[in-house]
Amino acid sequence: MKQFSIQRIANERLEKMVTDKIDNLTKPKGSLGRLEELALQVSLIQQTPFPILKHPCNILFAADHGITEEGVSKSPKSITWQQLYNILRGGAGINFLCRQHDFDLLVVDAGVDYDFPPMNGLLDMKIRKGTRNFLHEAAMTSQEMERCITVGAQCVERVHVQGGNVVSFGEMGIGNTSASSLWMTCLTGIPLQQCVGAGSGLSDEGVAHKYRILQQALDNFPGTHTPEEIICRFGGYEMVMAVGGMLRAAELRMVILVDGFIMTNCLLAASQFCPEVTDYAIYGHQGEESGHKLLLEYLHARPLLSLNLRLGEGSGAVCAYPIVDSAIRMINEMETFSNASVTKYF
Amino acid sequence: MKQFSIQRIANERLEKMVTDKIDNLTKPKGSLGRLEELALQVSLIQQTPFPILKHPCNILFAADHGITEEGVSKSPKSITWQQLYNILRGGAGINFLCRQHDFDLLVVDAGVDYDFPPMNGLLDMKIRKGTRNFLHEAAMTSQEMERCITVGAQCVERVHVQGGNVVSFGEMGIGNTSASSLWMTCLTGIPLQQCVGAGSGLSDEGVAHKYRILQQALDNFPGTHTPEEIICRFGGYEMVMAVGGMLRAAELRMVILVDGFIMTNCLLAASQFCPEVTDYAIYGHQGEESGHKLLLEYLHARPLLSLNLRLGEGSGAVCAYPIVDSAIRMINEMETFSNASVTKYF
Repeated sequence: MKQFSIQRIANERLEKMVTDKIDNLTKPKGSLGRLEELALQVSLIQQTPFPILKHPCNILFAADHGITEEGVSKSPKSITWQQLYNILRGGAGINFLCRQHDFDLLVVDAGVDYDFPPMNGLLDMKIRKGTRNFLHEAAMTSQEMERCITVGAQCVERVHVQGGNVVSFGEMGIGNTSASSLWMTCLTGIPLQQCVGAGSGLSDEGVAHKYRILQQALDNFPGTHTPEEIICRFGGYEMVMAVGGMLRAAELRMVILVDGFIMTNCLLAASQFCPEVTDYAIYGHQGEESGHKLLLEYLHARPLLSLNLRLGEGSGAVCAYPIVDSAIRMINEMETFSNASVTKYF
Repeated sequence: MKQFSIQRIANERLEKMVTDKIDNLTKPKGSLGRLEELALQVSLIQQTPFPILKHPCNILFAADHGITEEGVSKSPKSITWQQLYNILRGGAGINFLCRQHDFDLLVVDAGVDYDFPPMNGLLDMKIRKGTRNFLHEAAMTSQEMERCITVGAQCVERVHVQGGNVVSFGEMGIGNTSASSLWMTCLTGIPLQQCVGAGSGLSDEGVAHKYRILQQALDNFPGTHTPEEIICRFGGYEMVMAVGGMLRAAELRMVILVDGFIMTNCLLAASQFCPEVTDYAIYGHQGEESGHKLLLEYLHARPLLSLNLRLGEGSGAVCAYPIVDSAIRMINEMETFSNASVTKYF
């Protein structure tokens, strides 16, 4: 597989410099809480006490999943392509959030089961018209996985060459909470039952059926496996592209905004190849999907928001962006005690 | 005291209309969580299924507190006027947040113990150079309280006549967490110990001293009292102006953004006169100050953010504003299932 060279962001000298700078701003020490932590993290990512956020972009990967044949999702598979049209016309949830926070939106067909005509705004990187049904066989081949990693990395490079240094990742793909639950249980060892939730709105009965199918899928994949094998077995094309994108973003020292359950699983998968990738991650939102909270704890992650969002598309990441922006404005715009002639009272 | 006529926002017909509208947007039902609740609340406040946010303003009231003579605060009282200069020059925490989210900032001298020269951007409404020391006597007279209510209401009217329909309230006043703790215990019945915290950064020893002083202040004020008497006794000119501002904002059907511990106590006080005022409140942030969580539970309030902020100035309210803006964009900008030709899958 494509290799990535990701550096840890720790830098004792810079950390002291930035911390001193923050502690000299006109506020009680520590009183801007998480904003102060974010300012430090972004400074370390960018290797400067003068961090700046430029041209944020949400990359939205879309694909279909063979497992939907088993009735694991409330929504029909056709929602994937229908909703993609809606996104391209600007009418979806992610669109108003991108407009609000001045995000570019890069929409990528990773493997939707539909023949789109050439369209402005849609990047055709279709691997196949949906993955295979992982109840019976691997969802994708290792060649397909490698192709997804490469494509995901290339998408991030497009953002980077245009001057962007912040990238969020989103997805559209009916069935991908099922794939995510299986990645999570296999990669963390947390029992499947705790990794399965209601997706886009299953009833209790629906969740029970989904669980039975996913348990059967696990039973049909006995033994121990490498992360690559797990990713191929259950993975969605859109998910593996996000994995490649996250790895490349960290390699390029970009800020990674992580969305909900599915994208947190993609970061988990990325961390199997390069644990350093998590240094670059800012977690936007803790969703309602069962398992997300557990997964965030596993990753020692503290999301910025908890607004009961469960839309996907990158919405939880983009919605949290102004908080990151606030942190950067704090470090750049606030006055110091000495300049402001305020007694340093801490 | 000045009377306010505040309407409940409940409206069954409009609520059904707005809920139907939200449920027909291209997303799984309920999948935008708190954004959907905010959109409904603002629609009911504005009595329209087409809500809009206009010219938000943060009104920052500043004043000093006689109780600081007793060493209840880590910061010297002179910080109040020094920091007010810093705010007027644009270098404080609230300034970058107001710039970021396009808020006007109205700074009001409610009773700072300092002679400011006439300055652009500072509204001189000084009642007195700080309240009296409430360990021994009432912090303010009932005439002063009534004047504060009137001035606070007038400040909101300034925002309203300029077309604003969203107002957040902030404060600057060394000692005002002490005043707030006493309002809280007297108005809710929650024991004082659970209402007292570290303010701008007291040590455990400092908190213990603060508690002893505040308990003594309570002991020196025996018997039962009306809300007016409690407010006057432990006062805070900046706090009572915020109370008046909140009442008038609700009367004018404006959205009220509530900041941290002190402003939540002001809303609590306002609700003693008109319980309906809470219908208009959106709680921005749950801070670290002990007692804030309890007070929010008492008010059945669920703040949007929890970022360990404890700066005051309105920072937690303004920081949360983009989430309210997202909610309004959602209801105005998202496409419906039928317009987007997406199967309504719920």
